[in-house]
Amino acid sequence: MRLSRYFLPILRETPKEAEIVSHRLMLRAGMIRQESAGIYAWLPLGLKVLNKVNAIVREEQNRSGAVELLMPTIQSADLWRESGRYDAYGKEMLRIQDRHEREMLFGPTNEEMVTEIFRGYVRSYKDLPLNLYHIQWKFRDEVRPRFGVMRSREFLMKDAYSFDLDQAGAVHSYNKMFVAYLRTFARMGLKAIPMRADTGPIGGNLSHEFIILASTGESEVFCHADYLNFDIPAADTNFDDIAGLQSTVDKWTSLYAATSEMHDEAAFNAVSEDKKMSARGIEVGHIFYFGTKYSEPMGAKVMGPDGQETPVHMGSYGIGPSRLIAAIIEASHDENGIIWPEAVAPFDVAILNLKVGDAATDAASERLYRELGAAGRDVLYDDRDERPGGKFATADLIGVPWQVLIGPKGLAEGKVELKNRATGEREHLALEDVLARLTTRK
Amino acid sequence: MRLSRYFLPILRETPKEAEIVSHRLMLRAGMIRQESAGIYAWLPLGLKVLNKVNAIVREEQNRSGAVELLMPTIQSADLWRESGRYDAYGKEMLRIQDRHEREMLFGPTNEEMVTEIFRGYVRSYKDLPLNLYHIQWKFRDEVRPRFGVMRSREFLMKDAYSFDLDQAGAVHSYNKMFVAYLRTFARMGLKAIPMRADTGPIGGNLSHEFIILASTGESEVFCHADYLNFDIPAADTNFDDIAGLQSTVDKWTSLYAATSEMHDEAAFNAVSEDKKMSARGIEVGHIFYFGTKYSEPMGAKVMGPDGQETPVHMGSYGIGPSRLIAAIIEASHDENGIIWPEAVAPFDVAILNLKVGDAATDAASERLYRELGAAGRDVLYDDRDERPGGKFATADLIGVPWQVLIGPKGLAEGKVELKNRATGEREHLALEDVLARLTTRK
Repeated sequence: MRLSRYFLPILRETPKEAEIVSHRLMLRAGMIRQESAGIYAWLPLGLKVLNKVNAIVREEQNRSGAVELLMPTIQSADLWRESGRYDAYGKEMLRIQDRHEREMLFGPTNEEMVTEIFRGYVRSYKDLPLNLYHIQWKFRDEVRPRFGVMRSREFLMKDAYSFDLDQAGAVHSYNKMFVAYLRTFARMGLKAIPMRADTGPIGGNLSHEFIILASTGESEVFCHADYLNFDIPAADTNFDDIAGLQSTVDKWTSLYAATSEMHDEAAFNAVSEDKKMSARGIEVGHIFYFGTKYSEPMGAKVMGPDGQETPVHMGSYGIGPSRLIAAIIEASHDENGIIWPEAVAPFDVAILNLKVGDAATDAASERLYRELGAAGRDVLYDDRDERPGGKFATADLIGVPWQVLIGPKGLAEGKVELKNRATGEREHLALEDVLARLTTRK
Repeated sequence: MRLSRYFLPILRETPKEAEIVSHRLMLRAGMIRQESAGIYAWLPLGLKVLNKVNAIVREEQNRSGAVELLMPTIQSADLWRESGRYDAYGKEMLRIQDRHEREMLFGPTNEEMVTEIFRGYVRSYKDLPLNLYHIQWKFRDEVRPRFGVMRSREFLMKDAYSFDLDQAGAVHSYNKMFVAYLRTFARMGLKAIPMRADTGPIGGNLSHEFIILASTGESEVFCHADYLNFDIPAADTNFDDIAGLQSTVDKWTSLYAATSEMHDEAAFNAVSEDKKMSARGIEVGHIFYFGTKYSEPMGAKVMGPDGQETPVHMGSYGIGPSRLIAAIIEASHDENGIIWPEAVAPFDVAILNLKVGDAATDAASERLYRELGAAGRDVLYDDRDERPGGKFATADLIGVPWQVLIGPKGLAEGKVELKNRATGEREHLALEDVLARLTTRK
């Protein structure tokens, strides 16, 4: 993408309304714009990151055997009356009347709707297990939305719903998601630690939050330091291997880990002193097993092998990709801006033409842009007629992992500069060597 | 995808509520499920098609130079008061009050919001032209939603918005979209004819609808038959070539073409008798140039080269991917089901294992499934333990372009059957030949 033809509205000033660093940086880097309280437009740079995050989430959901569909945002109140949550949900639910005065709502979550879909089609245990997920916009009418997309009203959520004949099956489905989540966050360059959690308004009896550690995190968490060095399950994990998955989950739940809500001081004190870790954390995922809480009242039943109809055992599993992006920035930035992990970076490489109009720098920049693009790299080419200082600042702010600085002085010696955003390391290399380096990576 | 692990809820019965063939087939093929009047869930098969349609729309928007962002679904009423449309829009707008009793709405379109974004950042004519688009769910509270996703209340729309310094620039932007639309529909296997149109509630003075011909179309259209054989602009079209684009648009608007609303009997009668075509049509795209209708009241101005501030000239450009899918089915089906054009088919190939459990058919099916997948083909493998008749019917109903039928009888002679869904043509080939055929295509 040529920056001269892109829409990247960088802000020079730090926006006053932003209280946390991710919110400030997302506004300054032209990733988001607030349209109403807690409601954001995703500008082109932000959307690119959102799509990369979604792609990883999707790949890992699919790998675990979950099947993607897409439920609508607007739901009927009657559906929520079946589960009893229409009245119970409170003011966070955005209630709507249509032109015929039918009561509707903007879905804050989809347990009811997915249960309705399931019961509409599935009759037999032979069609189980089933895990259906979607990535769709949700609305929760927070009293005081803040922190940008970290706690917004309209937000994107990947929510998956599993259906099994019995509790044993449901635990296997739960474990699949547990492992998929470990892989999902690791691929984004995050260390996420599963912590036993409250089930809140979803209900149920088994639940884990996935928490990443960031000094600016929203809540205090307590855990065993060894979690930070645990191996992540491999890409070729066999998700049908019931015992194998259970042992992975057992390992990842064997040591102490708790949010402040679930914290047990006595149990934490049993951890050896050098392994005790207390830190700030940000919730990036939440998984629940809740048995027949929705299937029972809503009549989502299947015929079992014994010929008896029985309500299915369900779980739900959420990741908020929009919130996750803020969390990644909280965990990875410096005073100059964002430092994207390569897997979710909006662009792989930024080319900075330091003297637009100079025949040599133009030719070298164009060539690099063309050849990196042909090699499948996603490249932002800063071809604007601006002074180098502004280009350096923009590239650092938006956090593209690799920058190639092309100026007449270097070119006179046959060199361009390759800068790594994360380490700050700079190398002076021939254009060919930069090309070789950036096309063989990945 | 193994069908035994997929969620493809085929209906045997033709649903009574569906009046048109695309609606019937989408329900029967397990593509969509109605959740409320005019509100649909996209089941996995439907979502796959929707994603393929979106990908083509996106590629052609990007090719023309438009830049993607993503605006939220919920908008503030105040924004619409600025343009005067809040009161004017009528009952099709879904109006909402949040918990603080602030007036909001579910966006039926985004002229106001994109103008707000533009004016928030852009100050100079040097940043023009600019075309921003998104693909987002919209809501229009139709009195009588019907025809499935052809006229639903919650629907997906790609809407693009162009910003130019003056009318001449705006016409070039309009022409870019005109050409992009010709390419978009052609890539989906559709013959779309641009027809001069009313501007309706969007306003403005230049507008075309893109209409595809289908015997079940919603309205009558009249056009010159030569349009059907016009060449589609090439993939390497230079969108910066102002005169070149204008001549393409001139050619595509040189002959008579009108919807019944804009029909001029006298002008039509001037068409030679053998070229007169009157048929049923379905609108699949609509483009508008409306000058300063929104920029003027909303204060979206830029500094011109003369140092004067001037409101920008705008246009908007819509395609409804959800409705487009229904239109494709209306144009391409037979008595057995859907016939997908290859570019938007949910799967490239369906493998029908006609005797699950038979060692030879299992081995051949698995091998084909593995190798086609490795070659990047999107394959649905019917590995269910069902009788062949049901498998044939399912494959025809969901309309996958190529079917490979693998049974013990054929295999004993070293052959499998390759069936083309569109032509019905069947060939008996060695497995290697099928592999070669299906991996070298595209």
